[in-house]
Parts: sequence; structure tokens; C-alpha cells
Amino acid sequence: MERMLDHSSVVPLYHQLKELLKEAIEKEGGKPGDKMPSENELCAQYNISRNTAKKAIEDLVQEGVLKRVKGKGTFIAKPKLEQSLSGFYSFSKVMQESGIESKDIIIDLKVVEPTTKVMRVLQLLHGDKVIELKRLRCANKEPIIFETSYIPEHFVSRISTEDIQNSSLYDVMEKTFGIIVAKAKEVFEPILIQEYESKYLEVKEGYPALLLERIAFDTSENPVEFCHSVVRGDRCRFYTELI
Amino acid sequence: MERMLDHSSVVPLYHQLKELLKEAIEKEGGKPGDKMPSENELCAQYNISRNTAKKAIEDLVQEGVLKRVKGKGTFIAKPKLEQSLSGFYSFSKVMQESGIESKDIIIDLKVVEPTTKVMRVLQLLHGDKVIELKRLRCANKEPIIFETSYIPEHFVSRISTEDIQNSSLYDVMEKTFGIIVAKAKEVFEPILIQEYESKYLEVKEGYPALLLERIAFDTSENPVEFCHSVVRGDRCRFYTELI
Repeated sequence: MERMLDHSSVVPLYHQLKELLKEAIEKEGGKPGDKMPSENELCAQYNISRNTAKKAIEDLVQEGVLKRVKGKGTFIAKPKLEQSLSGFYSFSKVMQESGIESKDIIIDLKVVEPTTKVMRVLQLLHGDKVIELKRLRCANKEPIIFETSYIPEHFVSRISTEDIQNSSLYDVMEKTFGIIVAKAKEVFEPILIQEYESKYLEVKEGYPALLLERIAFDTSENPVEFCHSVVRGDRCRFYTELI
Repeated sequence: MERMLDHSSVVPLYHQLKELLKEAIEKEGGKPGDKMPSENELCAQYNISRNTAKKAIEDLVQEGVLKRVKGKGTFIAKPKLEQSLSGFYSFSKVMQESGIESKDIIIDLKVVEPTTKVMRVLQLLHGDKVIELKRLRCANKEPIIFETSYIPEHFVSRISTEDIQNSSLYDVMEKTFGIIVAKAKEVFEPILIQEYESKYLEVKEGYPALLLERIAFDTSENPVEFCHSVVRGDRCRFYTELI
């Protein structure tokens, strides 16, 4: 970290410091768990205010480069979980195949009236109801995705929390209800974590997240699930190969 | 908008109001440009505080559902620009094919020392330099993407702003320098708009954005470009079909 900040540049100091810290981590082969200098140390080393150091660190925590541990300091974060978009995937299966311990916490399972959007997406008729399933999906004991699935009630009538507790939703749909999920359309948008989700996902309100909306289809191209997922941006990223 | 808010619910009122407004727009077939009720009208209609109305509207503006026009009020926003991830794409070409008027503003073009990350990604040797091209990419006169491309200098020596001003970068690379961009790898992460980018993208600091990092390869699988794009989340979304 021998480089200095340019106090006369138009680029804000906190931004220069962020770039410099990222560069230092990359250059020196920083590993997850390595301790970062404290805010005080950064202030002294770079001749900057406490606020500048604080903002640089806070931004890097938001971006998932660093991780704060209360009372212990700031550390290089674990690499993000990566999800390929090259083919159909199920969160449980991907975690399983990557040897990552995954767990779903079922927050709510109930029959509801669909909203206009859910009706349209799932091609429902007036009076049709949907199962609303809210789950917190965890990897290595960390909450990663806050997910709400809507499934037409007539496809999975009397589905219970026990059914879903120990196997993937798509497995239950296939084995218990004979619905084979064959493909999906997904839309991605960046959003901010809301107060409501922040409690479950254990990140602050206003942190970056990805909203992922999936419509899943069965083998006859009927929509069988609409899924609304809020994915932690500090812990996940998606990749694809474009040919 | 006949539904009421539930003042006794654990779901915050601003969140209920957001969902209700979104539902009303979907249900009543709201069109881009339609005027929304003012904050005062919402306060009276739903018996809520000014802050609650303000937060609901602000969130919907951030999400790109609504758009504020200074001195005129709040309106339903235009639908987001959509980009398919099913194959290789170029922003200029996609806009052209969609009949959207696109324009690039060249902010900077210079030769720089690569950072450690750029060196690694572009497989450069010590001493190799890169062209750094910063562009603001606009669609229908609106700034959409703040993009920085790094290209090894030896591939495109003496490239000038005139070269890029009137045609796509990939066209210039192919026609002037004989480099055919054949495929790319892309990584997506949600981020927050920073102060520096907010000035160019004309959205507030802290708004949601997508960071898109692309490595483009030529026909012999050599990396020829590393591109770092900050894409406005209130104006764009990405979709894919998973089979």
C-alpha cells in the first residue's frame, strides 16, 4: 500500500481510497479473513479525515469486498456466490452440487388472492387462488435470498410446510403433484434492500440487491410458478457467456 | 384505488402504499406519462403522514416505476429498456435494431498503466499499456450507461475519438484494427450509484444500478477488451430464458 492519495484531484478522496484498497487486495493476493487496517490507521497513513476512511470502508462493505465483524474490525470478505445463467437452475441443487450447506427457512405458506400482476403472469381466471410461499434461503448458515413463490392453488392443493421442508420445491411439485418444471424466464433488476427484507437478510436497509423475477413453465409451456427473489448483492453475483 | 391501507398491520404503511399504487397502475392499465396523485392527495386519501407518502413515491421513483418532473408532479415512467442475455450483444446495435435513438458521449480517451486487475483479465505483461475509453451511453437523449473500456494498446494503437464518435467500438476494432470480437463473458452485480457517476447518469447518489463487467474475446479466444459498465437500474433490466 505504498501509493498515496492525490489531494488535488477532482476524484473524491474516499473514492481514491476505495480503488487503492481494492488494488492492494488484488496485488498482494489478499485472502478472505485477512484483517484490514483500522479507520484510525488509514487516517494516519493517508492523511485523511475519519469520515473519508469511514465512507471508503462502508462502500466496500456494501459491495461485499470487506466484511465488518462487531468488536473485531474489518476483514476481506469471502468471495461472492456465483450463479451461471447458461441453463435452468434450482438454488437448492446448485448449492448441493457446489458442496455448500444450504438451508431454507419457511417464513409463511398460505392460500391468497392473487394480485393483478400474479393473475396475468400465471394466466389465472377470476376466483382462482394461489399458494404464497415465503422462504429465506441460506448458504453456509448465511441468509442469501428472500424469496416469494406463487403457485396456482389447483396445481398443488394441500401442499404443506412438511412437504417443502426437506426437499426442493421443484422436487415436491414433480414427485407429489406431477408437475415437471422444464424451463423458466428470468428478469433481473438492481434494487435497494427494504426495511422488511433487511431483517431477514441481515443487511442494512438501502444495501444493493438484485430483484430476480422468474416465471417457471411445465413441459406443456404452462406457467406454474411466479417467483420474486431478493438476492443479497454483497454475497452474490451472476455470470453468463455470450456467444 | 378504492382499497385502503391497514393501519394495524406489521407491514409499514409506506410499503403498503407502494404495493397498492403498483397494483392500481397494473389494474387500471396506467400508461407512461399518466399523472399520479400528489403527495397531499395521497395523504388525504389514505389518512397518512406526508413522510409516508413521500417515502412510497421516492421508492417508486428509485425503482423506475414513477418519474418526477420538477415543478410538474409525478408520472408513470416509461417502461425500462430490456436487454436479452441469450446471445452476444452490442449496446449500439441493440438500440439501432429497436429503433431507439442512441448516442455516445466520449468523456475521455487516453493511454494508461493498467491496474493489477486489468492486467490479469487482459493477460498483459509488465510494461504493457491500455487504452482507457470512458463513454456515457444515451438512449432517446437519456443517459443510461456509464462505461469504461480497457483495450490493450498494441491492439488499437492510435485509436482516436473521431474513430469511435460515429460508429460502434466493435466496428472500429474490426474495420480499422482487424480485431473481431466473437464472444464475451459477463458478470452482474447490483451496486449503488456513486457521487462521480450520478453527475453523468443524472440520478441521485445511492440509487440502484447494475455493475456489468465484460471480458470480450476475439476469434482466437484472446481477451481484447475489459469493460466496466454502470447501468441505471431505474431505466434498464435484463432477461434470459433458462432451458
